[in-house]
Amino acid sequence: MTHAAATPSARPLSFETLKSAPADGSTRARLGRLMTPHGVIETPVFMPVGTNATVKALDPDDLREVGAQMILSNTYHLYLRPGHKRIARLGGLHRFMAWDGPILTDSGGFQVVSLGDMRSVDDDGVVFRSHLDGTIHRFTPEDAIGVQEALGSDVAVCLDQPVPPHASTRAAVAEATTRTHAWAERCLEAHSRPDQALFGIIQGGLEPDLRAESTRVIAGLPFDGICIGGLAGDETAAQRRAALDVAVRGLIEDPRPRYLMGLGSPADLLNAVDAGIDMFDSVLPARVARNGTLWVPDGRLNMRNSRFLDDPEPVQAGCRCRACRSFSRAYLAHLLRADELLFYRLATCHNLTFLLDFMARIRSAIADGTFPLLNSPAGSAA
Amino acid sequence: MTHAAATPSARPLSFETLKSAPADGSTRARLGRLMTPHGVIETPVFMPVGTNATVKALDPDDLREVGAQMILSNTYHLYLRPGHKRIARLGGLHRFMAWDGPILTDSGGFQVVSLGDMRSVDDDGVVFRSHLDGTIHRFTPEDAIGVQEALGSDVAVCLDQPVPPHASTRAAVAEATTRTHAWAERCLEAHSRPDQALFGIIQGGLEPDLRAESTRVIAGLPFDGICIGGLAGDETAAQRRAALDVAVRGLIEDPRPRYLMGLGSPADLLNAVDAGIDMFDSVLPARVARNGTLWVPDGRLNMRNSRFLDDPEPVQAGCRCRACRSFSRAYLAHLLRADELLFYRLATCHNLTFLLDFMARIRSAIADGTFPLLNSPAGSAA
Repeated sequence: MTHAAATPSARPLSFETLKSAPADGSTRARLGRLMTPHGVIETPVFMPVGTNATVKALDPDDLREVGAQMILSNTYHLYLRPGHKRIARLGGLHRFMAWDGPILTDSGGFQVVSLGDMRSVDDDGVVFRSHLDGTIHRFTPEDAIGVQEALGSDVAVCLDQPVPPHASTRAAVAEATTRTHAWAERCLEAHSRPDQALFGIIQGGLEPDLRAESTRVIAGLPFDGICIGGLAGDETAAQRRAALDVAVRGLIEDPRPRYLMGLGSPADLLNAVDAGIDMFDSVLPARVARNGTLWVPDGRLNMRNSRFLDDPEPVQAGCRCRACRSFSRAYLAHLLRADELLFYRLATCHNLTFLLDFMARIRSAIADGTFPLLNSPAGSAA
Repeated sequence: MTHAAATPSARPLSFETLKSAPADGSTRARLGRLMTPHGVIETPVFMPVGTNATVKALDPDDLREVGAQMILSNTYHLYLRPGHKRIARLGGLHRFMAWDGPILTDSGGFQVVSLGDMRSVDDDGVVFRSHLDGTIHRFTPEDAIGVQEALGSDVAVCLDQPVPPHASTRAAVAEATTRTHAWAERCLEAHSRPDQALFGIIQGGLEPDLRAESTRVIAGLPFDGICIGGLAGDETAAQRRAALDVAVRGLIEDPRPRYLMGLGSPADLLNAVDAGIDMFDSVLPARVARNGTLWVPDGRLNMRNSRFLDDPEPVQAGCRCRACRSFSRAYLAHLLRADELLFYRLATCHNLTFLLDFMARIRSAIADGTFPLLNSPAGSAA
């Protein structure tokens, strides 16, 4: 197999580094541009998550308004409901959800192996029990690719076997990592859709040698981009940074985009951008919003706190989002207490706007050469 | 007291009949224009209901997009949560919910007397138990006015005592109607806000003589408009029409707008416009939408029906609403099954657009002299 970078023009996705990390080693942060069949993305980029072919509470106009460049949708959920073949018959995922921007689909690996007692893993693939109706399903690397090709995302991802980074034994990490490598080759072999990119996933847990070896193996395969998996779990920030540094060290000369799966708090993103990561996704900003927690520059607001019931100020002065443009904290606090649907939409718009504007500031700082002097946001501890 | 029509320029609301009912008696439908402090409304008009200072699932931009001219909000609910004094401190209801169009508030009478065992009524007012926290509240006609003045709606409504029209004895109807008349005088006496109109409410159940007498009493008081209450309940369509005909006969020479409270299905609205009604409100279109029932010209679609899961067509071809512009029936059916918040917004947008466009067609037909030849919509039996 040849390296993806050897024939970039033939690939559905290309990545251009607009500004490389500085030679003085002060940061590995870099500025990039990702060209996909559905549009161009400025990196570092955060992708909101649309699990069931909808970013919860938002419509595509809202997504554009908050500044989403690309979204992630979940293969596992769409495979179970409404079914990937149905979505294919209806014209593919973009048309189904009326989002004409880029979409990345995960492989389902994370969801499947998170099912605990409801699944078993062997070298062939995963057998799991649907969380919806208890039906039994076998999911192989080839299935993961077939489902994602049916969905028609811009970027598909290999089936992998993540393990909890901190809680797993070295032996468990080693086995899952080796299996992930074998599955990566099978995914490459199975993948055929010419208008869809394919990313490989590095595993290796928190074991430096296994992480380095996994980086070497995955980077040696002709993927369009490199995911760093098995993090954003139960590890500490320092453990995560150490694992990221190992992986990125192995990718320094690699021209492809680096995607850290599942990370979503502002402070964590800042650190990971500094480590050299280009792409992110997480349900976190939207999930905490629906629970009533709104991110602001100097902390976070729990809208269930009764002090907000009389607060005429917007959630964040000067914020351009739909919630802050028109409504007071008092109104939002009222909507939340009344369990009114509008709360969930406005709160999600705010947190996603906060995070996507934060990513835009990160890109500006990298362009200006002032990164990482950017103030760390206090909205981090969600 | 002098009649409102004698000094129209001093009042916060005025009503102009643009086209009177034809002299041949073929219909009592009429075209009008209502001027309020927050804008001009073309009648006949349907007002979506924003119970908790939000039309469920929609924001003010959505309301404008569906074509809402005026909305109704519920005094009872806002009195209990977040509290009318709080809303007043925050700048009034328009500012609180960021809706700068006209608002009518009901009096709370319907909600309070609907509480069953949780309330008792005497000549002074109503004692009721909050459905939220069980606390005991006394609500008098003066309280109803005070709360609505604090909310700052464009149109306030008198406290009344509606009774189930079909299930009530003549004696119960008579007592409630007499009490409603006494309360109407007290509401007029209590009302002082110069930028807020006040409507009186006719009761009388299905008893023709009581309905006629109530019409005479209420129309004899200097209200800015006349509500017809105690209908849109358990009566048949024929019973309702008979009661409406009695009331409207008593208002034929009256220049003020006529508002039938609580009616919301297309066929019922068509009939009531024919009877001479100018204003309507109901939770029905939004409530059935949230339950998965969407109105279309030739019937209604239950989006839980599995046949929609593969249907690539929009809910209604040619419909201008947010749901029909971008999404298939298949997508909406998927969102509903996944209990995704976006379903409730899109479905509500569709049914309100359907009904408000239907009202616009009614107004055009009246203007053209073709009413009531308009086809009756099959979406009626919600």
